[in-house]
Amino acid sequence: MTAPIEKIQASLRRKKLDSLLVTQPENRLYLSGYTAADVSIAESAGVLLIPARSTPKLITDSRYFLQAESEAGGFDVVLCRDTLFSSLEKILSHMKFKNMAFESNYMLYSAALKLQKLEKKLHISMIPVFGIIEGLRLKKTTEEIGYIRNAVLLNEKVFQAAYTSLRPGQTERQVAMKIEAMMKEQGAEGPAFETIVASGPNAALPHAVPTNREIQKGETVIIDMGLKLKGYCSDMTRTVVLGKPDRRTIEIFRIVRKAQLAGQKKIKAGITAQQADRAARQIIRQAGYGPHFGHSLGHGVGLAVHEAPSLNRRHRNKLQPGMVVTVEPGIYIPGWGGVRLENMVVVEQGSCMLLNQDSTFLDL
Amino acid sequence: MTAPIEKIQASLRRKKLDSLLVTQPENRLYLSGYTAADVSIAESAGVLLIPARSTPKLITDSRYFLQAESEAGGFDVVLCRDTLFSSLEKILSHMKFKNMAFESNYMLYSAALKLQKLEKKLHISMIPVFGIIEGLRLKKTTEEIGYIRNAVLLNEKVFQAAYTSLRPGQTERQVAMKIEAMMKEQGAEGPAFETIVASGPNAALPHAVPTNREIQKGETVIIDMGLKLKGYCSDMTRTVVLGKPDRRTIEIFRIVRKAQLAGQKKIKAGITAQQADRAARQIIRQAGYGPHFGHSLGHGVGLAVHEAPSLNRRHRNKLQPGMVVTVEPGIYIPGWGGVRLENMVVVEQGSCMLLNQDSTFLDL
Repeated sequence: MTAPIEKIQASLRRKKLDSLLVTQPENRLYLSGYTAADVSIAESAGVLLIPARSTPKLITDSRYFLQAESEAGGFDVVLCRDTLFSSLEKILSHMKFKNMAFESNYMLYSAALKLQKLEKKLHISMIPVFGIIEGLRLKKTTEEIGYIRNAVLLNEKVFQAAYTSLRPGQTERQVAMKIEAMMKEQGAEGPAFETIVASGPNAALPHAVPTNREIQKGETVIIDMGLKLKGYCSDMTRTVVLGKPDRRTIEIFRIVRKAQLAGQKKIKAGITAQQADRAARQIIRQAGYGPHFGHSLGHGVGLAVHEAPSLNRRHRNKLQPGMVVTVEPGIYIPGWGGVRLENMVVVEQGSCMLLNQDSTFLDL
Repeated sequence: MTAPIEKIQASLRRKKLDSLLVTQPENRLYLSGYTAADVSIAESAGVLLIPARSTPKLITDSRYFLQAESEAGGFDVVLCRDTLFSSLEKILSHMKFKNMAFESNYMLYSAALKLQKLEKKLHISMIPVFGIIEGLRLKKTTEEIGYIRNAVLLNEKVFQAAYTSLRPGQTERQVAMKIEAMMKEQGAEGPAFETIVASGPNAALPHAVPTNREIQKGETVIIDMGLKLKGYCSDMTRTVVLGKPDRRTIEIFRIVRKAQLAGQKKIKAGITAQQADRAARQIIRQAGYGPHFGHSLGHGVGLAVHEAPSLNRRHRNKLQPGMVVTVEPGIYIPGWGGVRLENMVVVEQGSCMLLNQDSTFLDL
């Protein structure tokens, strides 16, 4: 198997690019194995400079240098003593590049302005590129799918432990905290995103933040959780009810579950994102809840918890074997609550493979 | 007191700007009170469009709409049904703006290219601006300092609980997890950054990630932790030793503490960031450990845990009353470990006010 870094270098040569600056954190991890997280886009834990024809470099500062040296096999790790930008300038002034590509999807406009100044000073064309590495990351290898499956299964184990001990009177925050603590206890790096526990009317907010509200019997509780394990993410949503759900809850739950199954049945190599979304959405629309399903059907998952492809009602890109996506329809009713169900699948020829084993679906 | 949003609108009018697009999450919170977090810079929880002379708008999607409505008093909340960008285009096509400023420090290059297309289509000049809102955020009001102090004191309470129960054999990860769980139990929104617990040789990495290493007697353990409370951050580092520290540890600890006190003594309105940094750094340099203190003396803290001003050896910007900064010298020795001590202070006329009460300094 060709390593991703070699594929990128070959791709640079084909595109007549002399070098590529990698700033996007998951792309950096994917190519180098260096696991540090950025404090923010304006405060990077390091950048990769990948020449088309020589050893790639990882530029970082003293805070991360030892970690970079130990993790980024095959990279020259360069210690920057001033800013990353000034180190980059110094290195570029010694290289004979005619051009350097940069990731326009992870470069601040203010930083791009600095690159444009450097372009004039060093006579190196700065070339914005889009998604070169993301394109490689779209289709997961068997090894990557194994990592993702492990992240999914561990996530389900933590969900089951939290669900089994769920009681009326616990607050959303308490449950979310317990879930996140268990993730780490079980060996995950941590949550892949802020765990959502949204009960009763709060469940009407698809991106609810856990509050001090006490969970009551009979209402819907959306638990949307994911963890990172060996760099790869999982993402799952279940909606549960303590005690007996009422008829309305059961009706809405059945519609969402039916939409999810329709989505999962539709997904295979060759169909478009739009077609997958429509398969699930029309179930909800036909049941009269169309306006209550505002978001997309799903999104890709890998090193990032949200990555391409988006299963979006407007996207016409075709699904390819090896893509990993969520299938997560929902119905949200202000003042009442909501139901969302989310699984993860791998796109294959002719069908998709469900990564989840958990079947907590209100025993329907 | 003039509200920040009114100050920004007045500032736009002075600069002959018709409107400002706010994308930076802490700036969005500062002006609107809307607390949602972005999934990433490419997946925003909403943007503000601030006309110089009319009611500001908050544009967000269905996932966040209810939250935005309930939090962003004084804003028209606009529900976007497609992308944020297409909603923005639709709104702009109805407004009579000659220009729109955008935050170049929080706008992806790829997104700026889209704005440039809109510029041509709608004949609205797109004007990159730098730090307009950050400039307002630099100097904290008395109310903000109160929030920050509460975040500092709660952080210290959690630190003391963790320190008191610290035992040899606990792993770095266990301690970090316990700290983060306590933060939430005590009412914080959560950690302001990934808690650092770095023991023995791991303490030589200023941005260490907690590992499964068991903490041993006699070695240095760096605990760098901060939390968010009502939106505002705290950030504190203590270095502790279980059992009796050896002579080398005591020597290095004393130097770092002396450097911290020298920094705190120097900081007041009117001195430069460089001067503050130098005051602490020269203590470490004179003791022969200069090369082992690679990072800056400190950074601003507020709604973001790292914000302006940076107490950097190269920055000549003057400190102003109301700025809140960390003072965090350190000495890091590969193979051995490290010592870092971090307090937070408010810059005042003639001196600075220490926000910390904790005095866990190896009982020196």
